[in-house]
Order: sequence, then C-alpha cells, then structure tokens
Amino acid sequence: MTDFAKHPDFIVQQKNPFNGEPPLDRLIKSEITPLELFFARNHAPVPDIDPKAYRLRVQGRVQRPLSLSLQEIYAFPKTILTAALQCAGNRRIDLIRHQAVPGEVPWQAQAIGNASWSGVSLRALLEEAGLRMPAAHVAFVGLDGVEKNGRRFGFGGSVPLDVALHGDVLLAYEMNGQPLTPVHGFPLRVVSPGYIGARSVKWLSEIAVSEQPSENHYQALAYKLFPPHVTAKNVDWSKGIMLGELSINAAICSPADGDRVPAGPVEVAGYAMAGGGRLVERVDVSTDGGDSWVEAKLSNAVRYAWRLWRAELNLAAGECELIVRAWDSATNTQPERVAPLWNFKGYMNNAWHRVRVRAV
Amino acid sequence: MTDFAKHPDFIVQQKNPFNGEPPLDRLIKSEITPLELFFARNHAPVPDIDPKAYRLRVQGRVQRPLSLSLQEIYAFPKTILTAALQCAGNRRIDLIRHQAVPGEVPWQAQAIGNASWSGVSLRALLEEAGLRMPAAHVAFVGLDGVEKNGRRFGFGGSVPLDVALHGDVLLAYEMNGQPLTPVHGFPLRVVSPGYIGARSVKWLSEIAVSEQPSENHYQALAYKLFPPHVTAKNVDWSKGIMLGELSINAAICSPADGDRVPAGPVEVAGYAMAGGGRLVERVDVSTDGGDSWVEAKLSNAVRYAWRLWRAELNLAAGECELIVRAWDSATNTQPERVAPLWNFKGYMNNAWHRVRVRAV
Repeated sequence: MTDFAKHPDFIVQQKNPFNGEPPLDRLIKSEITPLELFFARNHAPVPDIDPKAYRLRVQGRVQRPLSLSLQEIYAFPKTILTAALQCAGNRRIDLIRHQAVPGEVPWQAQAIGNASWSGVSLRALLEEAGLRMPAAHVAFVGLDGVEKNGRRFGFGGSVPLDVALHGDVLLAYEMNGQPLTPVHGFPLRVVSPGYIGARSVKWLSEIAVSEQPSENHYQALAYKLFPPHVTAKNVDWSKGIMLGELSINAAICSPADGDRVPAGPVEVAGYAMAGGGRLVERVDVSTDGGDSWVEAKLSNAVRYAWRLWRAELNLAAGECELIVRAWDSATNTQPERVAPLWNFKGYMNNAWHRVRVRAV
Repeated sequence: MTDFAKHPDFIVQQKNPFNGEPPLDRLIKSEITPLELFFARNHAPVPDIDPKAYRLRVQGRVQRPLSLSLQEIYAFPKTILTAALQCAGNRRIDLIRHQAVPGEVPWQAQAIGNASWSGVSLRALLEEAGLRMPAAHVAFVGLDGVEKNGRRFGFGGSVPLDVALHGDVLLAYEMNGQPLTPVHGFPLRVVSPGYIGARSVKWLSEIAVSEQPSENHYQALAYKLFPPHVTAKNVDWSKGIMLGELSINAAICSPADGDRVPAGPVEVAGYAMAGGGRLVERVDVSTDGGDSWVEAKLSNAVRYAWRLWRAELNLAAGECELIVRAWDSATNTQPERVAPLWNFKGYMNNAWHRVRVRAV
C-alpha cells in the first residue's frame, strides 16, 4: 500500500519515502484537516510495527529509566491538543522559482495541517522517570530506518527541556479521534507544537534526556538555516541556525495562482500559522504591492493551531497580484521578498505569499 | 534636577516628562550600557519616594495579600539578570520620515540599553502570596502620576501569568550593581525581559494577579499596534495588537548616516535584539540592497540580552547604503521596508536598518 488512504487528488511528491500534500483548494475547507488530506513527510519507508511487541524507552539523564508497553502508555491521563504541524520546507517551491534547491521536495504551500491529537503529555512521562540534572534537551528517535552515508538509523530530533516541561509536547496515539495511522506514526508519535514538523518524531521508539541537542543527523546537520551565499559545496555543517520554533507564515489558498475570477467583490481565503505558542494576531491582504492592506477576518485563536482567514476584495478587471502577510503576538511579521530568504536547503520560506489572478 | 546624571551628550527628547537616549556612537562601546547612557522613557515626572515609608502591595487573585517594606523585599534571595530593555517606539524616526506620527517621541535607534539587574524574582513573591485560580495575568502599577483625560493615575501594564512563573521577570532594586536611580525606578522596578519596555513598570507600587490583562491606559489602549490605514481619527481602541514580546530588531551604530569613511575595508558595528527569550542567531550586513549578505561576528548569546555585532565590509569609493538584518532562534527575520510597517502610533519599527555613507 502506498496511497495510505489519502484523497484521490492528494499530490504525491515522492512515492518512497512517501511525501505528499493536499490540493490547495481543499486545504482550508475545515478548521481540522481530515486524515485523507493531511500532508505526509517521511525520510524512510513507513515501518510495520507490531503493537504487542512495541516498547517505548525513556532513558538518558533520568532517575528511573522506563520501558513502557502501549497498555502502560494508555494508562496515563489522556490529554487532547489541537495543533498544526508544518514542514520546515513548506512553500519551498517559491524559493526554487528564485534559484534551484537540488535534492529537496518541492513543497507547495500545503505542507501544513491542523489536527486534534490525543495522547500522553511528555511532561507526565518525564515526571514518572524523574530528571537527573544537569539536563537541557529531550531527544526522540523513531523506528523507521533512514539510510544515510552508509548507516541505517531512526529519524530523530530534540526539543529544549523547558519546552518539554512547559510547552505542551504530546506523545500522541490518536489523530482526529482515530487511532494513529501508519503513515502518521502508529502506534505513537511526538507532537511538538509550534515547532517545525521534523521535531514531531513518528513511530517513537526512544526518549532520551540529555545535556546537548540530539546528535541525530536531522537535528545536528539537516534542518539548519544557512545564509544565501552558503551552498552544498562550501557549507560548514557545524554552523547554521538549528531550526526549532516556526516563524510566522500565511498563504492564500483561494483563489489559486492563474485563476480567472469575476471582477468586483472576490473572497480571498487562506491560513496563517505562528510558532512557539505565539498567536496569529492579524492577517493583512493587499492588491497594490503592499502599499495598502485590508484586514482579514480570522477563525478563533487557539494556541498552537493555525487560524483560517478570509477577506473580501474589490477587484478591477485585469491582472492582479494578491498578497497576504500575517502578524504574531510578538509583532513579528513576514518578509516581503523571497530572494533575500533563499537558502540552499530551501527552509523556512515565509515571504509574503503572492497569487496572480485575472479579473474578468 | 532634570539631567538625572546622564552623559553630557545624552539626547534629551523631552524635559518633562524626561525622555532621552544616548548618542548612537556611544551606545555600543560596551556590552553593558552605563547608567549615564541608558535611555529613559517616562510618562510623568519622576516621583520622589521616601524609602522608609515605601510599601509594595501584592494582591488580587492571591491567597495571602502582602504589603512589603524594602527591608522585607531585600530579605528574599537576590537574583541577578542581564537583560536589554527596548522601547516599543525605538526607531520611530524612520517611520516618521515615511509619514508623520504626531504627538510621539521621535526616538532614533538608541531607545535600548542592556543592563545587569539585581532583585527578587516575581515568581518568588507570587509563591509567597500563593495564587488563587483562575488567574492568567500579573498587573503592575507605578507611583508616578500620569495625567490623562482628566484623571491622575500610576503608569501600569501586565504580563501573562505563565511568563511571570517561567519567564524570569524580576523586581529589581539594583542596576549595574548600583542602587536603582530615581529616573530608572527607585526604589523598585519591574524588569520584564524580552518584552517592550512599557511592561517593565518603574517605581513599583502594586502587583495584582488577575484573570484579564491590566485595564491601565497603557495596557488596554496605548501600546497597541494598528494596521497602516488606521489613524487617530478612525481608530477603534478596543482593537489592535496588544504589544508584548519584542520582535527581532537590529541597528547599525557605526558608521552613522551621512558619515564619510575611507574606501576599502570598513568596520560596521551595531546591536541586535530578540524578543520573548529567543536568541539572536545571525546578523547579516549588505551593501547591495539585500542581494548579497556578509555574516557579522556576534558577542556571546545571553538569553534576554542584546548581542553586539561587527562586520568588515570592503567599500568602493562613492555613495553606499549599508543594511543590517537579524534572525532569531525561531527564524523570524526583519521586514525589508518601513512603509508597510507604518502605524499611527509609531510602534515596533524593525525594518532593515539602513545607513548611507560616502566612501572616499
């Protein structure tokens, strides 16, 4: 099975490992993204896991290392969290249009989804295990088998310990009220809300408390932001910004680029997402290159969730560029142009999102 | 006394209330800003407070309301915190050059300073008083007397309770190892690190735990961010983004706008500041309008402190625009232009900072 019960119009970017995103126009039909439309980002084949044999190990700088069966995990108090996940490569396609990003998935603006997750709070497990100080990070490893530089290992990453203790990190076994499906991490996955998707490790096998960030390839080397002049040829992998909290972002989902729309009042709609527990506070839409803005109406603010937005614009007949930008509760807003954000791994594009339409 | 022991070159923007900032070239001479160069932002005359009669009240949604003398405050464990304060109006002058901002102090880029603060952690006091849930905010009121709309009241503001509990908010009685001076809040002030300066209430008189943000004028109405089309005439004060955490910002302090510099290698230097406990991760400098960037060298990363930076650029003879932008640990970066950020109160300008020089 390689369709993983996705919608017939789901855009499969890569079959194996399975990577795909929903069609733009379907993404914002509901506040909660249905499973069949939720993007999937994998670095290895989806593992086949026997739930009876499954164990979660909690180790490293803890007082009482744990090895928990699923039944033992289900016995912890159940926590429900609504949170959007967004890939660090979301909107890479706009970076690629400026300059090539070889070897990376050309994500459109749909490598994002908003779900209701149920599971055990990471804090509860850490309290059960007890911390042994000094400790500053919590690392996760999955049961998938990434092949890289002649080695085979589970995808991994980490979050700072204070985020694990105060930031609502969840170990989820349900998504939208249903048992987690294999492609989304069955039987257990991390949900690190407000962080890049890569920190929400799937098929969770091991939690390790440590003094340093995870040494896994995907924390220590990949998922780093480099300046525009750095390339695969001159990169010093020990440098770069280790990605963590998401930056503020927004996209126009309707109308789509190239659409013909009736001149006159047109409804424009999309999503906006803030990182690190900050809220999306305002979304502005412009038809004159950012000289003037119309404030969009927003869906309710829920910490860690996206906010859907809509605005009515009055379009004169002819070509028109629609622009959106969002603001978060720390008054961070989006940069104007893609070019100064370009980086050779194609991460974190949050330039103003632009859609060209023809009003007729 | 209206000079408040400031440096002879201190730029007094307003005598009463006293508002001023240091000269640009002196701002970054040291990591810690000397008292005589630290900016001052006041909304009323500096109050004359008798330390013997002084009491701090802790009330609202607490189990045991407190009324503490200075000696009782000094008896709590002493906490030291290095933190930069930055006015929400810092760099307003660049907004004003785009469009007038009537009635507000025309701050240059020096309404910021980095100090070492000593005092009592707000959390320690809240633990002493005990919280009564539900509670979600902690409000502060000062002993100054603002005159506004026919009323006289102390300047006030609030921070979310989770920031008060986990965010290192300090009640400071020393600044740079010396007793707090009157203009900086003697005998006790709040230091809300990573927040706009207005949340660091001076001459602290009252702490009130509450369910809602402070209703003080400076939290409920002033210090809000409105879209560019909103003006004093059409504003709905119930709207706008209530300012809190700082956005990412940076400025070039040397050379200064209009300077003549020798062609060839030129050292450019300045500061960068991140909000909400995020770190400044990278500072880029450009001489070609942002098409290419040189990475600056940064002083050490200290949570809540600014980072000073310097870069060597090779300038050809002629006019040149130097540009700086910074990135924080959530990969938020600065917007390119001032115009799309303009707002009628002139807050939160963090557009790329630009300085024109002539290399000869």
